[in-house]
Amino acid sequence: MNEFAAIARLFAPLAAAEPGALGLLDDAALVTVAPGTQLVITKDVIVSGVHYLPDDPASLIARKLLRVNLSDLAAMGARPRAYLLGLALTKPVSESWMEGFAAGLAEDQESFGVTLIGGDTTAYDGPTVLSLTALGEVDLGRELRRGSAAVGDRIWVSGTIGDSALGLRALRGGLASSSDADRAILADRYHLPRPRVDLGQRLAGMAHTAIDVSDGLLADLGHICATSGLGAAVRIQAIPLSAPAHTAVALDSALMDDVLAGGDDYELLFTAPADADVELQALSRSLDLALTPIGIMQAGRTLRLLDRDGTPCPLPKRTGWTHF
Amino acid sequence: MNEFAAIARLFAPLAAAEPGALGLLDDAALVTVAPGTQLVITKDVIVSGVHYLPDDPASLIARKLLRVNLSDLAAMGARPRAYLLGLALTKPVSESWMEGFAAGLAEDQESFGVTLIGGDTTAYDGPTVLSLTALGEVDLGRELRRGSAAVGDRIWVSGTIGDSALGLRALRGGLASSSDADRAILADRYHLPRPRVDLGQRLAGMAHTAIDVSDGLLADLGHICATSGLGAAVRIQAIPLSAPAHTAVALDSALMDDVLAGGDDYELLFTAPADADVELQALSRSLDLALTPIGIMQAGRTLRLLDRDGTPCPLPKRTGWTHF
Repeated sequence: MNEFAAIARLFAPLAAAEPGALGLLDDAALVTVAPGTQLVITKDVIVSGVHYLPDDPASLIARKLLRVNLSDLAAMGARPRAYLLGLALTKPVSESWMEGFAAGLAEDQESFGVTLIGGDTTAYDGPTVLSLTALGEVDLGRELRRGSAAVGDRIWVSGTIGDSALGLRALRGGLASSSDADRAILADRYHLPRPRVDLGQRLAGMAHTAIDVSDGLLADLGHICATSGLGAAVRIQAIPLSAPAHTAVALDSALMDDVLAGGDDYELLFTAPADADVELQALSRSLDLALTPIGIMQAGRTLRLLDRDGTPCPLPKRTGWTHF
Repeated sequence: MNEFAAIARLFAPLAAAEPGALGLLDDAALVTVAPGTQLVITKDVIVSGVHYLPDDPASLIARKLLRVNLSDLAAMGARPRAYLLGLALTKPVSESWMEGFAAGLAEDQESFGVTLIGGDTTAYDGPTVLSLTALGEVDLGRELRRGSAAVGDRIWVSGTIGDSALGLRALRGGLASSSDADRAILADRYHLPRPRVDLGQRLAGMAHTAIDVSDGLLADLGHICATSGLGAAVRIQAIPLSAPAHTAVALDSALMDDVLAGGDDYELLFTAPADADVELQALSRSLDLALTPIGIMQAGRTLRLLDRDGTPCPLPKRTGWTHF
């Protein structure tokens, strides 16, 4: 498959709606930014066999690649806008794989209102490595940051935590005691993150900080603590679990480490002053998305996990994903 | 080596000058764009063993990665501004390699006035794959495009062509008849592109089109022809060669294919109306950079190569790099 033919047939249609993409025919793309607005830009890399399974369908890989980046935009409170691809593909490149990949992008472009505007593709003798640069925009001063938590802030999390890590375990043949239906639900959460882009935009003015849960709940809360110069206490019983995750943990309590440290959740973890409680509960209803308070920001630099009766529990040995 | 420690120690200093980088501690970077200005954004991927040699010094790899992207900005007439990295590194990641890589970036940040603002790093069992997203800016309407050549435009090229492809050949043990000094000069051109960022910015208002020569002289001229819906005639004797390239081709005329189709030159190829000749010659003197007219844009869709007496020569079998 010829690179330029692939770009023209599969990728150029994904760029058709954005004049600044220049039909993917130029050296670079042009982006204009409205006055009072700032661009938000993020770049993630996912690798076959590390961040997804080599046999995962190409369309799901494409959607995961896009969504993990949209999740970063969500954590900044940004509106998604456009993206660039950087693909290093295992040789030989299969046309059907490329078609599936482009179809996945097309589907999610529709869902999230983003457009391809540029990138680069190459093929080589090695595992597929995919990078994506996502652009969003946010009004000046309305961005959500990590370093602005205050003592007494409640710690909130969207959706449910741990499904993706448990889903990966299921895809690798684990969770034998769970039902097929449960394993399928969890696997789906591994394959297809739900970036909380609506929530992120609505949190501006309510939340003090936000981060997306990608490295692991405790690791990402650790990032908020480190950047804000604070500590935190999390009530382990308050962490929201889906029904399949709840069942899996009830059958094997060691799986709670997957929940706390597994990562790949792509939910938003954020802190907000207590007087935002009512507004956040209304927001949860309006988005039809669970928002759950799980702890509190404190002075000091310690991250503590508390049992039902307030007794400190040991932290898992691995608190989150490290990439090296 | 821990990922977060590497970011803090080696990469955060590269981001210190740009507040929007948020110290590389947040989910994304913030970029403001001045009124009347548009952002120019490009993304290239380079792979160990494909775009550089696995044993090349890390600092040179870093600088090449940055420079090939700056060359794309140059071809749009943009001022370089900032960049994001996406690194998939062969495990285990050596600390000295990372230090060399960061040192190379630091050196070129200084030279080109750019700042690191974000990115992602991962390590895995495979060849190192490096992607970079470069941001520049250009005044509205002043960008250089590929598709706006006119019949009768002269075709110009900066610097000399073919050095990089011949340098790669020398690094692989070829060019045995050339002197050590010649091989070293050519190898240096392979290792370290000179993106023509000053030239690109000065061409706005003079040139009708521009592209950087990365795929190969004929292939990239072919991109201008295809996008502009025109043909071109190039006088083969007019193509500017460095002294070492001239010697190599004189010793082995088959090496002329490397010049025409080898690529990786990162010179600017541009077209301009004949009445810009004097201004372009003055620009060449002011930048101390050779600008050489090599041909003319014509009606039709054919790319022709002409010998000294105007006789058509055969095109090389391979007119340029294809990535798949």
